[in-house]
Amino acid sequence: MIPVCDVQNRKGDSTFMLTKVGVTDVRKLVHIKRPDSNDCNEPLICRINVYVDLPAEQKGSHMSRNLEVLRAIVDECMKEPVSGIEDLAVNIGKLLLVKHEYATESNVEIEAEYFRNNKTPLGKDTTEVYGLIGKAKCRRDGYVRKTIGVRAVGMTACPCAQENVSEMLHCSNEWPVITHNQRNVCTVIMTTDDSVSIEADELIDIVNDSFSSPTFEVLKRDDEATVVINAHKNPRFVEDMVRAVLTKIVNRYSGLSDDTLVTVKSESEESIHKHNAFAERTATMGELRN
Amino acid sequence: MIPVCDVQNRKGDSTFMLTKVGVTDVRKLVHIKRPDSNDCNEPLICRINVYVDLPAEQKGSHMSRNLEVLRAIVDECMKEPVSGIEDLAVNIGKLLLVKHEYATESNVEIEAEYFRNNKTPLGKDTTEVYGLIGKAKCRRDGYVRKTIGVRAVGMTACPCAQENVSEMLHCSNEWPVITHNQRNVCTVIMTTDDSVSIEADELIDIVNDSFSSPTFEVLKRDDEATVVINAHKNPRFVEDMVRAVLTKIVNRYSGLSDDTLVTVKSESEESIHKHNAFAERTATMGELRN
Amino acid sequence: MIPVCDVQNRKGDSTFMLTKVGVTDVRKLVHIKRPDSNDCNEPLICRINVYVDLPAEQKGSHMSRNLEVLRAIVDECMKEPVSGIEDLAVNIGKLLLVKHEYATESNVEIEAEYFRNNKTPLGKDTTEVYGLIGKAKCRRDGYVRKTIGVRAVGMTACPCAQENVSEMLHCSNEWPVITHNQRNVCTVIMTTDDSVSIEADELIDIVNDSFSSPTFEVLKRDDEATVVINAHKNPRFVEDMVRAVLTKIVNRYSGLSDDTLVTVKSESEESIHKHNAFAERTATMGELRN
Amino acid sequence: MIPVCDVQNRKGDSTFMLTKVGVTDVRKLVHIKRPDSNDCNEPLICRINVYVDLPAEQKGSHMSRNLEVLRAIVDECMKEPVSGIEDLAVNIGKLLLVKHEYATESNVEIEAEYFRNNKTPLGKDTTEVYGLIGKAKCRRDGYVRKTIGVRAVGMTACPCAQENVSEMLHCSNEWPVITHNQRNVCTVIMTTDDSVSIEADELIDIVNDSFSSPTFEVLKRDDEATVVINAHKNPRFVEDMVRAVLTKIVNRYSGLSDDTLVTVKSESEESIHKHNAFAERTATMGELRN
Repeated sequence: MIPVCDVQNRKGDSTFMLTKVGVTDVRKLVHIKRPDSNDCNEPLICRINVYVDLPAEQKGSHMSRNLEVLRAIVDECMKEPVSGIEDLAVNIGKLLLVKHEYATESNVEIEAEYFRNNKTPLGKDTTEVYGLIGKAKCRRDGYVRKTIGVRAVGMTACPCAQENVSEMLHCSNEWPVITHNQRNVCTVIMTTDDSVSIEADELIDIVNDSFSSPTFEVLKRDDEATVVINAHKNPRFVEDMVRAVLTKIVNRYSGLSDDTLVTVKSESEESIHKHNAFAERTATMGELRN
Repeated sequence: MIPVCDVQNRKGDSTFMLTKVGVTDVRKLVHIKRPDSNDCNEPLICRINVYVDLPAEQKGSHMSRNLEVLRAIVDECMKEPVSGIEDLAVNIGKLLLVKHEYATESNVEIEAEYFRNNKTPLGKDTTEVYGLIGKAKCRRDGYVRKTIGVRAVGMTACPCAQENVSEMLHCSNEWPVITHNQRNVCTVIMTTDDSVSIEADELIDIVNDSFSSPTFEVLKRDDEATVVINAHKNPRFVEDMVRAVLTKIVNRYSGLSDDTLVTVKSESEESIHKHNAFAERTATMGELRN
Repeated sequence: MIPVCDVQNRKGDSTFMLTKVGVTDVRKLVHIKRPDSNDCNEPLICRINVYVDLPAEQKGSHMSRNLEVLRAIVDECMKEPVSGIEDLAVNIGKLLLVKHEYATESNVEIEAEYFRNNKTPLGKDTTEVYGLIGKAKCRRDGYVRKTIGVRAVGMTACPCAQENVSEMLHCSNEWPVITHNQRNVCTVIMTTDDSVSIEADELIDIVNDSFSSPTFEVLKRDDEATVVINAHKNPRFVEDMVRAVLTKIVNRYSGLSDDTLVTVKSESEESIHKHNAFAERTATMGELRN
Repeated sequence: MIPVCDVQNRKGDSTFMLTKVGVTDVRKLVHIKRPDSNDCNEPLICRINVYVDLPAEQKGSHMSRNLEVLRAIVDECMKEPVSGIEDLAVNIGKLLLVKHEYATESNVEIEAEYFRNNKTPLGKDTTEVYGLIGKAKCRRDGYVRKTIGVRAVGMTACPCAQENVSEMLHCSNEWPVITHNQRNVCTVIMTTDDSVSIEADELIDIVNDSFSSPTFEVLKRDDEATVVINAHKNPRFVEDMVRAVLTKIVNRYSGLSDDTLVTVKSESEESIHKHNAFAERTATMGELRN
């Protein structure tokens, strides 16, 4: 065994502490326990960033320990699956503090694609893909905050163009009036205490219910017509979407404490423009309840 | 001056010739002469790939010469602007063969964003962004083929959903019937002899005329309604779009030789699905004329 | 049941046939049979494009059938896993021709990330991520060609800079001389008859053996030093890498027919430049054997 | 003139205020005044996001006004060029508040690529590309904060691997010892009062001086060897880089007030790993001075 130096641990003149030191864009295949599947676990390909802080008097963080922590937690996950990537993030964040004895705080960010079975309006089976976001911030004093988020693609139909067309053509009210519609990407992110459990599936349902219409993998003719009609009967600005999601969150999560942080974003890839329309609200549950 | 070895020129046992050796993702700010602007030239930020082939008996290509060629041609361009990035590509390709004396062929690929003034249906000024593609393949025997291409974002409205909705609701024919519409990205790429000149602006016009509607930077109310109505009176599959562009190309470029290569692609970012719809034709002008 | 029109099937004036009509960026979770795992299958998240050609006299392709084909094949795969995404592509391509009765050719493209266990030079366990590529082209007359490809990230150390530094510093030959090294992305793509079987794992091994050094998830001190030393004892241009891969392919796959198509690409994200160095060879096995 | 409704202005039941409503991914060609060029202005292709807040009682924001504001400011810029995209952002932010009379705050984000002439270590001319970031937050009460940032690509050589190799090989101290080196992306972002002026060129110089070595467009042999030698004599962790930049910022900007916000990030695309190493500090100038 060759004795090796430990450049990172070297102490020198005090310099600046660093807020986040770690590794980014690590990819891991993990398995998550699904509430509705006794027999098999959901495979997720995760993109992971992990960081700890670094005191002013220490030259470097031990980067390879981050990868050892990720291996250990992912291995553990194979034996005893966690129920969400936000819990995975907390487990990683806690072990980071054990392995980096000089750190006072760890931060973990995970993103993955999630496949979920769904039904079209007329009841045909589809499988839809969603984005999952899981984060954790852990401190040596026991403070743990975790973040769960979802990203869904749906459809918005513009209420303004619909009224303008109606005026211009003196449309009767008998038929749904034409308007521009387009892909919308809606993101909900909630940050809470470690003890709280929020289901990603529930957040996906809330977002899907807030589009002009959700979108589907396979739409045969009548299903396609139904989706188009539904969207035009339910036109939505990005502003409307964010408010619709916020209303459902306030109603559904009445048990969440006032300091829960909520971010809702909606971005429409406007069919009549080359740019996007965007709306966002960031607030605590306390602020939303007032 | 320290004598340096020339690893690249080293000759050894013959091994495999290489088709393309060069540098990728080089970024350059160049100025292009616009037909309609006497006083100023159009700045373009180009992403450039350049390659030459490498004979079997030579160890390496001289990578730094590629960058010297790019500097020289871009400098020349400041004094005497070329009229398109496809001509820039030809100039680069020819000089590559001079500087890489061992090469028999050079390939150059350039992409840039291009800003062009336009008018809304009701005549208001807008500025729209398009993609430009320029390529060149040059051989030591004098063979030169150049490629000019454009990429435009517009709007397609689906004719199938429109008929299905019409059937389902027993719509009258008085009003344009609702359907899903969305962003579409359409690309036209033409490869010809060096001597031929094709205007990017003309290709952009052809594409814009083939969408259900082109899209615009600013649309106040009546303009917005007009764009929506136009699109719904002119529903288009991606298949329709490609065929519309092909028809216009065959009519407009009757002077182009039969061996001109034409590729037209149309991709709709479907508002009712999370995936895209796509159509493409690749053919020679000779094939298209039959 | 409301009677619906079939806009796509409508016959009209003959116009242009289309080369490729289909859907792009469809995402599917599939399970692949691994040669070394009796008990469990490998989950892959696939990005899939599928196309068929469209005759001149038909207005549109039936886009939703593409999604039905994908569902059917992925479902089948759950019961009877295929052994590679290239076989999945062939199965999809064949069923596309059944469902699109007007088409003469189908094309399928699949990409996925693949996680594989590995060992560091000193024998520690790691898991590395690679890219997989699977394609199929099927014709109604029974012609089937399939494509299997891999993409791996490794390390190249530059032989030219190493010699130049050596000259400049009059270095002794005792120690490996410094040079710039960097991430390299190497891609191998092989297109063969449907009957041929090529293991992705073997192609990954060939690429890993052709870098200056492969790269690893976790490297503790001695392993890190060993990787650095190995890379500097084995400096490689992108040209060297492509030729090394070609040599191994010609030797390993002596049984493959002369019309097998081979593409090898190597791209170094140069540490001393903001652009990349690139080399590629595309050739048939017959050409490579001469 | 057809009377049109104004859906956005509609007042209804009070709902949630929104933090940010606007448009994203707008692209504009603008010209910026360079300090060193009397005769010509620098063309920049900007990607712009603009937002205002929306009161709870108003249904929608007037999206098209955002595009009118952008057109007006970019036009003004052609006549009287501003000296940085952060000033452009402030001008846009102020006009947003004029045009959206219901808003209390505006936010503007701009990114662009910037080309700058440079010299290699041996004095040859090169042109390097950098990223520019400009932001503004304006409030109706006159509060204005602006953000200027730069992003530069350079090279880091690892000090830890260098020592480990040295130990393993019992290297003499005569020659620079081998190590892994790689591309590094370093970002500096500073948020100050509107009245303060910080030169992007100065921030780029600070970052370039903090890499193991900056990188260059063209490096002929001796220049290439010199860059490699310089980098190996100056090995840097991402932690070292961030601290080096912070030290230079504290020294150089002694005149900036304590509430100036500073973020420095350094990300190394590790040549021996498939993931990246990352370090960051976010702090006020006041905190950095203690």
